[in-house]
Amino acid sequence: MKKMEYQNVRGTQDFLPQAEAVRRNIRRTLEDTFILYGCKTIETPILNYSDLMTSKYAGGAEILQEMYTLSDRGDRKLALRYDLTIPFAKVVAMNPNFAMPFKRYEIGKVFRDGPIKAGRFREFTQCDVDIVGVESQSAEAELMMMAVDAFEKLNVKIQIQYNNRKLLYGLLQIFEVRETVMDRVILILDKMEKIDRATLIKELSELDLADSSLRVIMQFLEAPPTLDYFKSLTEQNEFVKQGVAELCELMDYLAALQIDALCIFNPFLARGLEIYTGTIYEIFIADGTIKSSIGSGGRYDNAIGGLIGTGQQYATVGISFGLDVIYTAFELAGKVEQNLCDIDIYIIPINTEKQALQLATKLRNAGNRVEDELTGKKVRKAMDKANRENIAQVIVLGEEEVHNNSVKLKDMKSGNVKEMEFTFN
Amino acid sequence: MKKMEYQNVRGTQDFLPQAEAVRRNIRRTLEDTFILYGCKTIETPILNYSDLMTSKYAGGAEILQEMYTLSDRGDRKLALRYDLTIPFAKVVAMNPNFAMPFKRYEIGKVFRDGPIKAGRFREFTQCDVDIVGVESQSAEAELMMMAVDAFEKLNVKIQIQYNNRKLLYGLLQIFEVRETVMDRVILILDKMEKIDRATLIKELSELDLADSSLRVIMQFLEAPPTLDYFKSLTEQNEFVKQGVAELCELMDYLAALQIDALCIFNPFLARGLEIYTGTIYEIFIADGTIKSSIGSGGRYDNAIGGLIGTGQQYATVGISFGLDVIYTAFELAGKVEQNLCDIDIYIIPINTEKQALQLATKLRNAGNRVEDELTGKKVRKAMDKANRENIAQVIVLGEEEVHNNSVKLKDMKSGNVKEMEFTFN
Repeated sequence: MKKMEYQNVRGTQDFLPQAEAVRRNIRRTLEDTFILYGCKTIETPILNYSDLMTSKYAGGAEILQEMYTLSDRGDRKLALRYDLTIPFAKVVAMNPNFAMPFKRYEIGKVFRDGPIKAGRFREFTQCDVDIVGVESQSAEAELMMMAVDAFEKLNVKIQIQYNNRKLLYGLLQIFEVRETVMDRVILILDKMEKIDRATLIKELSELDLADSSLRVIMQFLEAPPTLDYFKSLTEQNEFVKQGVAELCELMDYLAALQIDALCIFNPFLARGLEIYTGTIYEIFIADGTIKSSIGSGGRYDNAIGGLIGTGQQYATVGISFGLDVIYTAFELAGKVEQNLCDIDIYIIPINTEKQALQLATKLRNAGNRVEDELTGKKVRKAMDKANRENIAQVIVLGEEEVHNNSVKLKDMKSGNVKEMEFTFN
Repeated sequence: MKKMEYQNVRGTQDFLPQAEAVRRNIRRTLEDTFILYGCKTIETPILNYSDLMTSKYAGGAEILQEMYTLSDRGDRKLALRYDLTIPFAKVVAMNPNFAMPFKRYEIGKVFRDGPIKAGRFREFTQCDVDIVGVESQSAEAELMMMAVDAFEKLNVKIQIQYNNRKLLYGLLQIFEVRETVMDRVILILDKMEKIDRATLIKELSELDLADSSLRVIMQFLEAPPTLDYFKSLTEQNEFVKQGVAELCELMDYLAALQIDALCIFNPFLARGLEIYTGTIYEIFIADGTIKSSIGSGGRYDNAIGGLIGTGQQYATVGISFGLDVIYTAFELAGKVEQNLCDIDIYIIPINTEKQALQLATKLRNAGNRVEDELTGKKVRKAMDKANRENIAQVIVLGEEEVHNNSVKLKDMKSGNVKEMEFTFN
């Protein structure tokens, strides 16, 4: 018989026990933090009608190219979700009776048939919180505070970069950039820290901007504009005026929460997606272990109304954490212990298999993670395993112990032995 | 603008906050129990090569018809996983260095484009534990004990029905049922409690069994064979002999664990899938709230070796819990509280938005689930919301409270007010 060679689909992977235990911890820490912030949980399907996923207010052309599509036996045109935002908007649309503000979290898999890089896969887990129904910047501030809280619990120092879409937009209006190429200029500027200057200039030149526009954009690249600079423009442009006002409001909240030192204004930050309408932010690991952001989000007041189709505005702010990129950062930082043990007590029976199961149940009910050796392994081999797997405490259960209703719990590090009474039936 | 009508794909659904909170509790209780039983966690992809999913040792013809297939942009033939067993076998095949026994759990979504009924969807969540490398019935007993433990924590009374595939197989050999129709006879008998007697007989007649075989099978249906009856046949048939020995060993363990009263021998239980080789079991809700089993499993010693292709035996026992069917049972039993509150403290600021965020952070860090009213709602409306949503404690935060560094926590049920010091900065 020929041994089969198996492999995972490109862009997907298995997470084995050491890795997955770390991921479970990250996931639970995020989820527990979301719960403390008063978020309600929902779960939406991975399978969706492709019509929904390709709606005008959905992910944009770039993401749609990466969408996995399929048909079911009833020949329905389906797609795997590529984010948790569209399914969320769908839920809001389908449940007009929801009390607002509505604050929900969802943790789940999403799929994108796109390029693969460190921390970026084709099947990955997003952890999203969105708030619908709050117009003030307190919603943004609360989500940024939540990010700080969650990563403090995970013992990861983060930096949050933020900006307001209106500033960039208003500035480019002042620079007389045409409306038709506005979004493309913003997308190019957003890549500033990822591509080299020459490519950036080349991409901008191809947009056929007026010379004067191109020249001021270049200056802007050399000397990033400060908040004071934007403040000096508020009388010239309504977008800049609104953007400055929102930014100042946000900064006030961040100062009140004492997280202003962790949060940095970045005038070039634009976020790829076109749906954002106001504040935007990206979260980075402070020491730069990984270049990609580990979370991001912002305000998108038009998307839900657009998806629902009423044109009504739904003030919405969201934040999304990438479980896979956070895990990759942990891995790169050497935080995935290769010999982490998930067993507290290991029971090695010697012809006492039945009693060992009784004892294991009792110890588990008291909250211990117990492994019971069920293979009939000899004691010496079992002790080797205990050492190799770094197990803290071992009980060798012989007939004498059973007869005396007394077991010996050995601490493998200190060698100390503690006697415990246990009535076998 | 026309309002869009959205709907979910047939066989999928959204779980809204009340439902999902209950599901989260079920899921976490199962996971925490798996961890106490010393299970390691893994995560496998939903996207797989369809070659793997259609392998001979995989799910069988009936499941393969229900498989969702798709292609990626590289024209790879992919399929959505329909269970967690094949991905697990793949992981064992790809990691020949795993120390045995290997006990893992995985909780994740699986997909089947099949018929829909109560608790049965096309996209659903399985919670699986499998043990590779244990030949004795102690593995089965441990998994059955684990099921009892988990459902005790969930406050659900269960009944476990068990059988051994070898008994049925041996008995049918004694009845001179031909090898070629053996599996089909077993599948028909398995449906005994689901279809009526006439249909059962009709299906059996179509198999062209010898009259004598059909007659003894009929008797067998009228008067279910007892364990003693099987014991009387051990000398006639090797399968019956092995089956009886394994069953007696298992029963010994169940008695030692004092769960024998919850576990019932059912000689007709066969489990649909052909992969099982020994003990099989299904878990039911004791009061019959829902007819479908809420979990099931058994021993399948040939599948992993078959999938790996070495022909080597890998002693394997598994158990799988269906999150969706368990949730449906909770729903049918009225256990999904319609007004369950997931907020401990609700803060209503009056022109104190910044201080409210500070206070919220402090209270959250102390472990309270806090909602901060961010919309500027008037106090009366906010109190209405607190009552409607059944929130336990409310803080109305005015400028005076901020000035005095003292807040009033009101218990909404008793009306009692507790003063708390808090230094606003």
